[in-house]
Amino acid sequence: MALDESLLYERVAADIAALIAAGALRPGDRLPSVRKLCRDRTVSVATVLAAYRKLEGDGLVEPRAKSGHFVRRFERPLPKKTPARPRLSLSPQRVSVSASVSALLESMRDPSVVPLGGGVVDPELLPIRALNRTLASLARELGTAGATYDMAPGLPSLRRQLARRSLSWGLSLGEDEFVTTVGAMEAMHLALRATTRPGDTVVVATPTYFGLLQLVEELNLRALEIPSYERTGLDLDALDRALSQARIAAVLCMPTFDNPLGALMSEANKERLVRTLAKHEVPLIEDDVYGELALDGSRPRPAKAFDKDGLVLLCGSVSKTLAAGYRVGWLSPGRFAERVERLKFSMTLATPTLTQMAVAEYLQSGGYDRHLRSLRAHFAVQVHRYREAVAQAFPAGTRISEPLGGYVLWVEMPRGVSAFELQAEALDRGIAIAPGPIFSARGAFPSTIRVSCILRFGPRVEEALATVGDLASRQIERGRRLDVA
Amino acid sequence: MALDESLLYERVAADIAALIAAGALRPGDRLPSVRKLCRDRTVSVATVLAAYRKLEGDGLVEPRAKSGHFVRRFERPLPKKTPARPRLSLSPQRVSVSASVSALLESMRDPSVVPLGGGVVDPELLPIRALNRTLASLARELGTAGATYDMAPGLPSLRRQLARRSLSWGLSLGEDEFVTTVGAMEAMHLALRATTRPGDTVVVATPTYFGLLQLVEELNLRALEIPSYERTGLDLDALDRALSQARIAAVLCMPTFDNPLGALMSEANKERLVRTLAKHEVPLIEDDVYGELALDGSRPRPAKAFDKDGLVLLCGSVSKTLAAGYRVGWLSPGRFAERVERLKFSMTLATPTLTQMAVAEYLQSGGYDRHLRSLRAHFAVQVHRYREAVAQAFPAGTRISEPLGGYVLWVEMPRGVSAFELQAEALDRGIAIAPGPIFSARGAFPSTIRVSCILRFGPRVEEALATVGDLASRQIERGRRLDVA
Repeated sequence: MALDESLLYERVAADIAALIAAGALRPGDRLPSVRKLCRDRTVSVATVLAAYRKLEGDGLVEPRAKSGHFVRRFERPLPKKTPARPRLSLSPQRVSVSASVSALLESMRDPSVVPLGGGVVDPELLPIRALNRTLASLARELGTAGATYDMAPGLPSLRRQLARRSLSWGLSLGEDEFVTTVGAMEAMHLALRATTRPGDTVVVATPTYFGLLQLVEELNLRALEIPSYERTGLDLDALDRALSQARIAAVLCMPTFDNPLGALMSEANKERLVRTLAKHEVPLIEDDVYGELALDGSRPRPAKAFDKDGLVLLCGSVSKTLAAGYRVGWLSPGRFAERVERLKFSMTLATPTLTQMAVAEYLQSGGYDRHLRSLRAHFAVQVHRYREAVAQAFPAGTRISEPLGGYVLWVEMPRGVSAFELQAEALDRGIAIAPGPIFSARGAFPSTIRVSCILRFGPRVEEALATVGDLASRQIERGRRLDVA
Repeated sequence: MALDESLLYERVAADIAALIAAGALRPGDRLPSVRKLCRDRTVSVATVLAAYRKLEGDGLVEPRAKSGHFVRRFERPLPKKTPARPRLSLSPQRVSVSASVSALLESMRDPSVVPLGGGVVDPELLPIRALNRTLASLARELGTAGATYDMAPGLPSLRRQLARRSLSWGLSLGEDEFVTTVGAMEAMHLALRATTRPGDTVVVATPTYFGLLQLVEELNLRALEIPSYERTGLDLDALDRALSQARIAAVLCMPTFDNPLGALMSEANKERLVRTLAKHEVPLIEDDVYGELALDGSRPRPAKAFDKDGLVLLCGSVSKTLAAGYRVGWLSPGRFAERVERLKFSMTLATPTLTQMAVAEYLQSGGYDRHLRSLRAHFAVQVHRYREAVAQAFPAGTRISEPLGGYVLWVEMPRGVSAFELQAEALDRGIAIAPGPIFSARGAFPSTIRVSCILRFGPRVEEALATVGDLASRQIERGRRLDVA
């Protein structure tokens, strides 16, 4: 074997060792066959054999008669090439909005954590089996579907269904007035990019969903916060003042059941909002993801219903009501259609085909409205029971929102409580909560948390809420002792 | 365009303007497709395009990427906040680039058009039925899969398979070194946003895929063009000079079988590229979507193989080899992992679950390598036959690339040919081609076209190529007559 050949086998061996260390090849896994590796790496059989012998010598792999080489099973853990990311510990000194959001998102992956901080709706409440069966049938029957795609505006059959559904929202959008997207997040992203340029100022409600604040920040936009209230939603007087004082590129809000307040703007206020913005030629980006989830069973009209100028960009998805993992959403972009379609091309090129097909067929089948009725009824009960448990468990003086739609509670505790500290303390006990400051660009709401009622109410939830309430009470007590001392 | 031809386009434009004035075509309505109007009026594509350009110029209609032309929704331009902003290096040439890309993308939807201009690989060449069956089984068996998602870095089982495959690319990436994406376009988008800020300058090869140029422009970046050559790929000496003269935020290129040249950088040059950029601390965004498609059956190592500093962001997908409509891609983001994962959250939140699962299972099943071998062999034959047909049919003096991988040809014709005119003339005859100028930020390559060998070679392709060659020859002859006259 020539010198460079021997270097070659060492490189091949080192690459495989690295894969084993990284866990990509696991104990018991079979290594690629000698012939395959020869082809893949364009090296000789001798080189591969030498590499495998070296790995054997190093104790990493073992040959099995007639079967090839396998990664050895070890008693002691292998050293990791890429260390598993350390679990974020949130010490009070080092809290920041971004660390807090990271910890929250990471906790959503851990099924042992009680997800009061948010996450996806319990799959058992969703017609996911029916939807998956539809997908399975389409994938089997349509043969080559999935090999090709429909670029923006997206799959015609889905847009047709959305156009039909828009009637039940109190709108009458044509199928040409929709662009399908990879969930509502891509819709919001497209809407913001279509209406703004880096450095522009956009109005956001406060409090509002932290994902929107993150999006605004990442698009290099400035967030101008306008208060939002539980009874009325966005403060339109404050908005008027802002519009007369600053150059606003767009307004981003959730007029129908916002997150985290569950607020619903009245029809009159929606109309005033749309008119005011039209007067200033400012686009409204309307996040309507909770629009179907009125707890009283109604379906309020989106603000888009009052749009005469094509200035309202309506964003929605099936993530809260059907299947978050399908990532099927939409944008009705009004007069920004051309720009949105162009941007969509260089974001994701097209929305995946088969999942769009499955959602379109499911919507056409007619079971969706029945499902929505039962889902709304379920959340009405859930939210009620969570509210009662919070009221019992949390410190005196705690204010709990009474959402009209959606499934989150906004829980304002007395000033002695630090929401960030509470998040860290609760996470230590296997419970995730969303601290108030992440719902504001300026880190307001220091003593408030959002509680998501996605897990079916029962002893696990009750205990978790009792624990969090207890932790909050102890914070207040500690504060009192410090005051006395 | 002859004199009577130019009167013709004005008449077509006037007729459409009359329809708009009479309200028969309303704001937001789509104009007839170029081809339909050609048929209806028995005029050429050039005439219709000229008519539509005039209507655009008059502010009556607007083109929408991939959708055609629409009656504008408002008479006066939008205020400063929302206007279509000037494109990078705006010039009359650049305006036709956009119309040309729109026409090209629009033509991809029309199955009656011979798709020499690009599109997705013929589904019959792909194991799409097997993949769809896998998807169907998963959707049926896994019950509630699809209701939930794995946020970035994405589905572990897919990342594990990618880590294993990276061995056959000559890398040894761990599963923690991948982020799954909605196709390679989202990967490129994430990589660019993670490494740049609006206003930054990025290096792009010229010629390069028009989609990347569009992406660069839409992220408000400046494109600095560095020549790329068929034999050697990116001009590294020119890159050296650029790096010493300008502040470069990132380099975007396809070292392995670029689009449109099919060029492959040597290992030595890949190493030099990575080292040079590391010295300047400049990230390399490596688009590797054609990496598996070497026409000689090899699998060249990506430039990422030489990355010691985590500065190479490797982008790939299964769109060219398995299923474009699944939109499954990946990014190995090196040291930018944290930022990429954060950005992914506010782009699409998560990559759809079930399609990732299906691709992971398909990759694990082991049939992929066999499929790739036959796909490569197929393209080797295809590209050869297309080359021969072009060589026969096109004007004397035409240079045809000899790609080492991928499935596109770069066809440089004598100066007398206008690629834009050729595109219009060919589309008039039901044939799409991609004109050279759309592959350059400055509209270079006026007499070059890209020919995609995606349709199985046969009489339909042969005739189409003969027609395009004939049209090109006629352009040259017309030019000669004008010279004589």
